[in-house]
Amino acid sequence: MKEKLKEMKERIMPGGKTMILAYDQGFEHGPRDFLEHPEGGKFEYILDIAKKGSFTGLVLHAGLAEKYASEIADSGIPLILKLNGKSELYTEEDPFSPQLYSVEEAITLGAVAVGYTVYSGSKYEDEMHREFSKIVREAHSKGIMAIGWMYPRGKAIFDRKSASKTLKMALDEQEQTNQAIDETPSIVAYGARIGLELGADMVKVKYTGSPDSFRWVVQSAYPTKVVMSGGTMTKTDEKFLSRVKDVLAAGAAGIAVGRNIWQRQDPLSISKKLHQLIYGY
Amino acid sequence: MKEKLKEMKERIMPGGKTMILAYDQGFEHGPRDFLEHPEGGKFEYILDIAKKGSFTGLVLHAGLAEKYASEIADSGIPLILKLNGKSELYTEEDPFSPQLYSVEEAITLGAVAVGYTVYSGSKYEDEMHREFSKIVREAHSKGIMAIGWMYPRGKAIFDRKSASKTLKMALDEQEQTNQAIDETPSIVAYGARIGLELGADMVKVKYTGSPDSFRWVVQSAYPTKVVMSGGTMTKTDEKFLSRVKDVLAAGAAGIAVGRNIWQRQDPLSISKKLHQLIYGY
Amino acid sequence: MKEKLKEMKERIMPGGKTMILAYDQGFEHGPRDFLEHPEGGKFEYILDIAKKGSFTGLVLHAGLAEKYASEIADSGIPLILKLNGKSELYTEEDPFSPQLYSVEEAITLGAVAVGYTVYSGSKYEDEMHREFSKIVREAHSKGIMAIGWMYPRGKAIFDRKSASKTLKMALDEQEQTNQAIDETPSIVAYGARIGLELGADMVKVKYTGSPDSFRWVVQSAYPTKVVMSGGTMTKTDEKFLSRVKDVLAAGAAGIAVGRNIWQRQDPLSISKKLHQLIYGY
Amino acid sequence: MKEKLKEMKERIMPGGKTMILAYDQGFEHGPRDFLEHPEGGKFEYILDIAKKGSFTGLVLHAGLAEKYASEIADSGIPLILKLNGKSELYTEEDPFSPQLYSVEEAITLGAVAVGYTVYSGSKYEDEMHREFSKIVREAHSKGIMAIGWMYPRGKAIFDRKSASKTLKMALDEQEQTNQAIDETPSIVAYGARIGLELGADMVKVKYTGSPDSFRWVVQSAYPTKVVMSGGTMTKTDEKFLSRVKDVLAAGAAGIAVGRNIWQRQDPLSISKKLHQLIYGY
Amino acid sequence: MKEKLKEMKERIMPGGKTMILAYDQGFEHGPRDFLEHPEGGKFEYILDIAKKGSFTGLVLHAGLAEKYASEIADSGIPLILKLNGKSELYTEEDPFSPQLYSVEEAITLGAVAVGYTVYSGSKYEDEMHREFSKIVREAHSKGIMAIGWMYPRGKAIFDRKSASKTLKMALDEQEQTNQAIDETPSIVAYGARIGLELGADMVKVKYTGSPDSFRWVVQSAYPTKVVMSGGTMTKTDEKFLSRVKDVLAAGAAGIAVGRNIWQRQDPLSISKKLHQLIYGY
Repeated sequence: MKEKLKEMKERIMPGGKTMILAYDQGFEHGPRDFLEHPEGGKFEYILDIAKKGSFTGLVLHAGLAEKYASEIADSGIPLILKLNGKSELYTEEDPFSPQLYSVEEAITLGAVAVGYTVYSGSKYEDEMHREFSKIVREAHSKGIMAIGWMYPRGKAIFDRKSASKTLKMALDEQEQTNQAIDETPSIVAYGARIGLELGADMVKVKYTGSPDSFRWVVQSAYPTKVVMSGGTMTKTDEKFLSRVKDVLAAGAAGIAVGRNIWQRQDPLSISKKLHQLIYGY
Repeated sequence: MKEKLKEMKERIMPGGKTMILAYDQGFEHGPRDFLEHPEGGKFEYILDIAKKGSFTGLVLHAGLAEKYASEIADSGIPLILKLNGKSELYTEEDPFSPQLYSVEEAITLGAVAVGYTVYSGSKYEDEMHREFSKIVREAHSKGIMAIGWMYPRGKAIFDRKSASKTLKMALDEQEQTNQAIDETPSIVAYGARIGLELGADMVKVKYTGSPDSFRWVVQSAYPTKVVMSGGTMTKTDEKFLSRVKDVLAAGAAGIAVGRNIWQRQDPLSISKKLHQLIYGY
Repeated sequence: MKEKLKEMKERIMPGGKTMILAYDQGFEHGPRDFLEHPEGGKFEYILDIAKKGSFTGLVLHAGLAEKYASEIADSGIPLILKLNGKSELYTEEDPFSPQLYSVEEAITLGAVAVGYTVYSGSKYEDEMHREFSKIVREAHSKGIMAIGWMYPRGKAIFDRKSASKTLKMALDEQEQTNQAIDETPSIVAYGARIGLELGADMVKVKYTGSPDSFRWVVQSAYPTKVVMSGGTMTKTDEKFLSRVKDVLAAGAAGIAVGRNIWQRQDPLSISKKLHQLIYGY
Repeated sequence: MKEKLKEMKERIMPGGKTMILAYDQGFEHGPRDFLEHPEGGKFEYILDIAKKGSFTGLVLHAGLAEKYASEIADSGIPLILKLNGKSELYTEEDPFSPQLYSVEEAITLGAVAVGYTVYSGSKYEDEMHREFSKIVREAHSKGIMAIGWMYPRGKAIFDRKSASKTLKMALDEQEQTNQAIDETPSIVAYGARIGLELGADMVKVKYTGSPDSFRWVVQSAYPTKVVMSGGTMTKTDEKFLSRVKDVLAAGAAGIAVGRNIWQRQDPLSISKKLHQLIYGY
Repeated sequence: MKEKLKEMKERIMPGGKTMILAYDQGFEHGPRDFLEHPEGGKFEYILDIAKKGSFTGLVLHAGLAEKYASEIADSGIPLILKLNGKSELYTEEDPFSPQLYSVEEAITLGAVAVGYTVYSGSKYEDEMHREFSKIVREAHSKGIMAIGWMYPRGKAIFDRKSASKTLKMALDEQEQTNQAIDETPSIVAYGARIGLELGADMVKVKYTGSPDSFRWVVQSAYPTKVVMSGGTMTKTDEKFLSRVKDVLAAGAAGIAVGRNIWQRQDPLSISKKLHQLIYGY
């Protein structure tokens, strides 16, 4: 299975670099993400971007992966099945995102990798650590990749009275840089490290605001690969591209991006610029 | 199994259109729904309406499906087994409706489809998303349809301080149209989308008040089919038929209706009008 | 298995009528039920009543069913294994009664039927609906009967601010008749209906105070059979016999009675009168 | 398996009488029980007492049972594996003691019986009733004995506003005799009865203060055998021996005792006196 | 399997003594533990220390154990897979550390022992006692060692109103010695004893401040082996070495140490001194 896993990694990370198109927002945010550009709500449109933009991975929930199985297979774009998800209709401070599909089902749907969001710091971190850990073990035993969306979050993280040293460091960082607490280097690096400890092949994390601080994240996860999460659409292409440059300079393997592509007027233009940054052509 | 699933879909949606008779209210509301017209409490009466009204599906819990298995089989009406349910005797703001029967048992009872209510937005959404997701996978692996009753509900949905963008949009819509929060386009479309993301073949949703807003729902679920839930009995036939016209114009595949049929004095009369609207004959 | 199930039904309901001796009170109420007549605490005494009184079923927990397996088999009285139970030592307003034995174990112990208490309206109704539903499916697949003790109960049922229509109706009924809320026709009929929807062959319910209201219960459960629960010992034989007359007139299949038999000075005398009422000889 | 079970019973209850040495206190109370007589903390010392004192059973957790498996086997003393336990470091008013080992593992370790503590009245009684019930079924299906430590306990038992009749009776008894509530005849007899209802072969209960009241306990559990729990060390041998006389007179099968043996200066002396009382030689 | 287990013990405890390098802090504390000496964050550096320092065991989570499987195998250093873990991002007073990998997976990864942290005294102690107990049984059935990190902790332990005798003793000890409550002899010895009762081959515990008190710990766990946990880095080598001397004098089998090695400027220097103390060469 090690050979198969190696082959899967090469498909998603040709030459060690990756450019993943994320399309699980219909679950996480709902149709509001498609209001401005309703084409974004149609899968045919998304698959077309993925192909023309030369993305090396496409993140989907099982519904679309199943209904468009043959189109996805024809496209040749590696499928990353997102195994968990939650709606924004329920808004508890301590998030939990349950596993919805098995690794076995992902393979049946043609996936070369599985993804799972881990909200370390939530009071449900125990369940998510456990689920992700089992997913990693099973994925590897079956020769596919496991990718962790490592997003520390929860009431405790925002608790100023907390006794934890990491949280104190994060609060200090926040004071100095004005960053959101879950984008401080201490928090992001810890999330990335948990991905490594649990065996992830790749972790998707938030940007920490500077190449130097992101280098600490990359280092903390080593040898697990690190990709930057695209996040909400930036006002200009340049602002987003500048971030990507930073994380690549810091040693990131690439990016996993959705709204910054398919919410833009010209998704292919920015896709080509990203490809140039990541692959150099 | 894809061939079998296709055949099942054709049975419930001949020509892509559907007209389903819902009869799970004995569980959800109890015998009070039969007080005005006690015949409605007898299954023989219901099955007769289904046959004479040319319904293309009948929704039941396992008790009736088992006790009248041969009568249902003889009728030729496709059975949709409702896999979960809850009573109105327990009234927590965050609803949970547990799975009561397995997909395997549904098939044993002769079902061509399974149904499941998903209360996204409830603090138990994780359990229901998980259960429904497993049901969809298993149904498809065994060649039968999976239908989601997508009803976002729960304390968080009514929480004005909620940070979620979708909820803010819904509150704005409510202010403008005076609709119930769980009938606003943003909420209904989100529910429908979750159905798609989890792999439902069909979603049953509330009416959003206008053809335009319902089109957004249909679009958000595409290519999953959308049917309108009948809801409480309207004062006149016309009021209900007008809604059906709206949703059909918006691209809905049809309706799933109970009380608006069997609580009426003349259930066959309205059934025929509905058939005319949906199938054109 | 349908043939076997039919045979089992005929054993417990010869000619469609039934007279069941309940003896699970040692678990539910503890030894206090035997204080006045300590013989009642001894199983030999109970089995003797069951035989001499010509009861058509005997309800036991697994302990006694196992320890007296050969005596019970010799007696020829059909065994109904009560699968769940709880003590009165724990007194939460929302009751939960967990399944203690499997259907398979019931069959091993010689049972021709299994019983299970469902407290619909409790915040644990989801677990009990789920357990009972599975029990019904399994019992039928193995050819034995499933009987539901349908007792809606819990904090919500006593909550005057509750939004549920059924509860409002029950509160109105209570005002008019001074009945306990869980003995109002709306509540009892709802419990009975849930038994039908889940597939029970028979439901055991509380008396609603009049033949007319009990007829509504019987009708709501149809074609599931309804038996009246005996409840606490009435002051006179007559008072109890009068209730039994009422429910038989309302279409009940019979009764399931314990304390009104074995707490009396002369259990055989009342047993014979009951037999006369139910079977006519 | 009935033959095997009978044989096991004869080993632990030769001639129907039993004298069990309990040694699970290291888990329940921790090393403080060994402070006065540190030899009590060493298993070799305990096993020596068991042998020389002619005990007919020895209660252990899996750790000691496994590490001293060959010594125990050589001793010929029947092993009773205590399947659940909890520490006194966690002090919730409603106790829960989880099952730690399976019946299968007990048999592998050479046990002829399994023990389990049931805290009826705790808000976790459902879980413990369920676990113990499964243990009894499995033990019997494999031919070994099941013994219940029946200790009603929990917040509800001390709640004066409780609606339960048993609790009211217990409070009355407490007023009259000044006993601890969980040592009143009503409470102890109820616990013993639950043991019978669930199928225990033997129940271990607290002393109720008089032979008469203990007779009620024995009667309530009949035909399940009753043994008195030794409890904390009494000041004199006589005080303890007097209790044992009482319960034997009341029909108890014997005792299960720990601290009253191995916390004493001369454990063998009292062991011999106990043997004399129980077996007459 | 007993032969295999014996062999595994001899590998980790050559001649009955052990010197284990702990490296699970990346999960428990996050990257902050590597801030001062960033090399400590790289596994290659750690493995090098383990080899050159002649450690007899290396504690890892599955991520590193898998990614460096061949390097670890080549090194010849026995792998101890830590089966549970939690982050310091979530900070509930009652800790729970969930099992993340199975014993089977540990064996697949080449482990000769499994480790698990037990927070007795936490309101989740039931789950951890249960998980650890199952792990011990399974490890032994497969011939590998089970090591318990026995760390009593939780809200109840700090509760001065607690009724538990052990806790009262611990509070007295704290008053006399000014120790942290979870480092008092009563608490540490209790944790160690639970390890024995559940069947651990070795327990890792905190230092109690003196050889005499630590002897009580060793005695309470006998015949389970006791190792001292290294804890936070002491200011000087001497301070740490002095503690090690104390516990060895008290009968400990050795130590399990992390930060006191790889957070130091010269990890090999202190490693050699430790080896000298433990093995005498």
